[in-house]
Amino acid sequence: MMINNQLNYVRIFDTTLRDGEQSPGATLTSPEKLEIARALARIGVDVIEAGFPTASPDDLEAVRRIAIEVGQSSGPDGELPIICGLARASKGDIDKAWEAVRHAPKPRIHTFLATSEIHMKHKLRLDPEEVVDRVVEMVAYARSFCEDVEFSPEDAGRSDPKFLYVVLEEAIKAGATTLNIPDTVGYTTPDEFGALIAGIIENVPGIENVIVSTHCHDDLGLATANTLAGIRAGARQVEVTVNGIGERAGNTSLEEIVMGLRTRRPLLNIDTGIDTTQLTRISRMVSTYTGILVPPNKAIVGANAFAHEAGIHQDGMLKHQSTYEIMLPETVGLSQSNLVLGKHSGRHAFKVRLNELGYDLNQDDLDRAFVRFKALADKKKAITDADLEALLTDELYQPRQIFSLDGLQVTCGTMGMPTATVRLKEEGGKIHVHAAVGEGPVDAAYKAIDAIAKVANTLLEFSVHAVTEGIDAQGEVTVRIQPQDGDSVTHAQRNGGLPRTYGGYGADTDIIVASVKAYLTAINRLLTSEINSSEAQDLTRVNAVTKA
Amino acid sequence: MMINNQLNYVRIFDTTLRDGEQSPGATLTSPEKLEIARALARIGVDVIEAGFPTASPDDLEAVRRIAIEVGQSSGPDGELPIICGLARASKGDIDKAWEAVRHAPKPRIHTFLATSEIHMKHKLRLDPEEVVDRVVEMVAYARSFCEDVEFSPEDAGRSDPKFLYVVLEEAIKAGATTLNIPDTVGYTTPDEFGALIAGIIENVPGIENVIVSTHCHDDLGLATANTLAGIRAGARQVEVTVNGIGERAGNTSLEEIVMGLRTRRPLLNIDTGIDTTQLTRISRMVSTYTGILVPPNKAIVGANAFAHEAGIHQDGMLKHQSTYEIMLPETVGLSQSNLVLGKHSGRHAFKVRLNELGYDLNQDDLDRAFVRFKALADKKKAITDADLEALLTDELYQPRQIFSLDGLQVTCGTMGMPTATVRLKEEGGKIHVHAAVGEGPVDAAYKAIDAIAKVANTLLEFSVHAVTEGIDAQGEVTVRIQPQDGDSVTHAQRNGGLPRTYGGYGADTDIIVASVKAYLTAINRLLTSEINSSEAQDLTRVNAVTKA
Repeated sequence: MMINNQLNYVRIFDTTLRDGEQSPGATLTSPEKLEIARALARIGVDVIEAGFPTASPDDLEAVRRIAIEVGQSSGPDGELPIICGLARASKGDIDKAWEAVRHAPKPRIHTFLATSEIHMKHKLRLDPEEVVDRVVEMVAYARSFCEDVEFSPEDAGRSDPKFLYVVLEEAIKAGATTLNIPDTVGYTTPDEFGALIAGIIENVPGIENVIVSTHCHDDLGLATANTLAGIRAGARQVEVTVNGIGERAGNTSLEEIVMGLRTRRPLLNIDTGIDTTQLTRISRMVSTYTGILVPPNKAIVGANAFAHEAGIHQDGMLKHQSTYEIMLPETVGLSQSNLVLGKHSGRHAFKVRLNELGYDLNQDDLDRAFVRFKALADKKKAITDADLEALLTDELYQPRQIFSLDGLQVTCGTMGMPTATVRLKEEGGKIHVHAAVGEGPVDAAYKAIDAIAKVANTLLEFSVHAVTEGIDAQGEVTVRIQPQDGDSVTHAQRNGGLPRTYGGYGADTDIIVASVKAYLTAINRLLTSEINSSEAQDLTRVNAVTKA
Repeated sequence: MMINNQLNYVRIFDTTLRDGEQSPGATLTSPEKLEIARALARIGVDVIEAGFPTASPDDLEAVRRIAIEVGQSSGPDGELPIICGLARASKGDIDKAWEAVRHAPKPRIHTFLATSEIHMKHKLRLDPEEVVDRVVEMVAYARSFCEDVEFSPEDAGRSDPKFLYVVLEEAIKAGATTLNIPDTVGYTTPDEFGALIAGIIENVPGIENVIVSTHCHDDLGLATANTLAGIRAGARQVEVTVNGIGERAGNTSLEEIVMGLRTRRPLLNIDTGIDTTQLTRISRMVSTYTGILVPPNKAIVGANAFAHEAGIHQDGMLKHQSTYEIMLPETVGLSQSNLVLGKHSGRHAFKVRLNELGYDLNQDDLDRAFVRFKALADKKKAITDADLEALLTDELYQPRQIFSLDGLQVTCGTMGMPTATVRLKEEGGKIHVHAAVGEGPVDAAYKAIDAIAKVANTLLEFSVHAVTEGIDAQGEVTVRIQPQDGDSVTHAQRNGGLPRTYGGYGADTDIIVASVKAYLTAINRLLTSEINSSEAQDLTRVNAVTKA
């Protein structure tokens, strides 16, 4: 059975920026999406699903920028990534997807339509015949723009296989080059999903000329096993997300599939193009930007995944590492040397370590980061890689600073009224000072900021964790806010919009200072997005005029 | 093929208190272990592995108390749980395990010895023949005390199947009643693990008279799929942990297996005795006590696992729930009504809601909790179930209060030196006041506490998260400390000891107050454990004398 010219190569299709970003609260800003897309290209992902351009003008613009800026960035094997945009089976969605991805050297349009009885009846309200007609029409329409067209029969896991074969055959005839089989609700077992893929490969005429792909969800904890079963049955593309994020229980996680195939290569005989030594770093980046924590017991990228990292004296382990380890920590880029820099480390040592961690800063960013590093080293004896990453995230990936923190003074405790005085500098230099009382010091400080920035919002999430061990550790704060009268974005799979939310991140040895920084980041993102959003709408209008 | 009289019933063997507690940083105190064991009995777990009694006198005592107190608590089907203690294949370990479990109406001794070449050679330094002899001798020795004996060939997943069959046959002859097959390093795929179980059932003489069990780890993200494959091949016991905690990437998670079997019952035709409506609550309890967070995208028990819980307007979902949901949230005990109580709620409404959540407090505890509730309702408009659980955890599950917080005053911010003044009341009534300067307000407060309590320790973990949405939310703080000259515990599978650590938990609308409460809880646990530990050693000595 001939699937493709590279029989033993599985394409990694990453949908962190599309299905992953649909996780409640995971909303990313455009600069964050660009950074993640760059990291995905660097790690060797074959296809980057950059977003759902119809969702909002902001989303279209983010996919367009990724197509332009990341479409040119070759991976470890020298190949350029395919930049993919999602579209429902409608001309409007496909137009927007093409508008967004067409600037990439390797663009792809991915369109989908549900084929399960429950979805056709309750969501689409279409007969099976109408579904086939719509698929044919829309795949052909996408193909009129783009040579690389992917089609997904949504909820394939609960669709009638016979009907599915018909839909897929027609999609191939209409020009689809990849057929993706989603277990949309995470309902199948590995045997069932493997059989579904095998049935498709056996029964769909023309299937030998296209790539078959899997898209699994983890509602029953079986996404990784189902995806591997799909590969064994002949799938040669897998749709995954970093850290397995995504709606509900999330998608198949990139790192588990890549390391499963690698660790069990003699059994499975399948390769990917992924540079595994960057897995830990991209996992941290996605966790930081989305605010979705990775639990310590997460396979491959959890803090405890490698036994000897716990810093515990383990005699058995030291004697023979493979007694309890099936992978070497170095393989996933987990650095052995945790303790790296201190008070007396110079600019050169600092720069070298940053390069080793994969950061390549320009002189300006390096100077700013070094100043922060020296300030931190004054407060904290041992600066670890985790400290450096927290510092860089806090320093470099900031939105436009519409308001910046100029001073903070807080009193709290059990005996009085928690009070915060905040001094903010507005763009242009204007200074604002406000004092407020709250239920706690964070509440008080946030109220003071609200009084100055005047952006009505709800705090959806607030979390703090220590970057490293020790009482002098930096605190990392992640917040997420939702404006009261904010934009909403169009959801790919459901009717109706979702309110947009904004995340913020701050790090400091004082957790109240870190909390204020995180909140200001979120507020600045919200304000910047409101400005960009009106600009993007203007731009869309200009483009429409030019095209016409 | 006859496995047991109940062909379609799989026994749930929970090892949260043994393998789960071996997770770095998950150390539980004896009262916490008792609470979790009670919850496990209530949910209908068939076998509770309560600990590894050889680890330390504290661990033995915890298993003994569970045997006495929880061994009598029947589950939803009226059955008493089996209380199991782990023992290496040595007389000393088996003596201690029996000493701990013998008070239970249904005791079990679980002993194990590695059978893979790599473990026999590098860890045990035994020939295969010596391994067989040791297994026979120790299973028979365990059987001389106890009718219910489980044997595990450690690292079975990497053992030579032919040798495994011999070991298992001899273990059955020596009296083992359950044979547990561990994939100790999480290396196998579902096909391999299913074939391993099928091979054992086909090739081991006498296997029809014992229960075959699975024990899978999640290093490649395949634990749930491997366990289901084991069940389909004939295993009728599965070893699992709540939230899938455990060493490295953890064990198979209880909730995934139970809900997988239930959701796909027509396909798999297997039942368990678990009351699924308590899954959410036990997941939260284990997360709170171990300090191991459940990520939002965790299957079954993650905050996002059920789409409609996100509080987002979802048109498609409302039209027909099963479009995107394969389980109903009520099935796992996720309460639909999130907003329950407010400022004007009376004692009766409070008590009724607590009962609905599964808490049955005595009058004293209820009075204390109600006072806390009223104080919280003054600060926070809407009190949710999550608030109530945070409040009860903070109020009820406290260690002996060797030091309690009597007052706290904190100043911090960007402009000066973070300073905390702490007033603690010692048992007996003595008041201590100390002020300290730190790198941040938490650091300052902890330094002040250290100056009073004089317990040298390292802060291993510190995390805060908001209990609910909104700027007036309570902060929940979890800390973990390690004393500088603390006890160590014997590790079941490795040579050499592990240092003991202590966790603390605090909740307050002021996160600095919550941080101080959490730290004091950990310090009180450490001090209490040092007192108990010397008492337990005295007790062991007394028992030894009595026995002799």
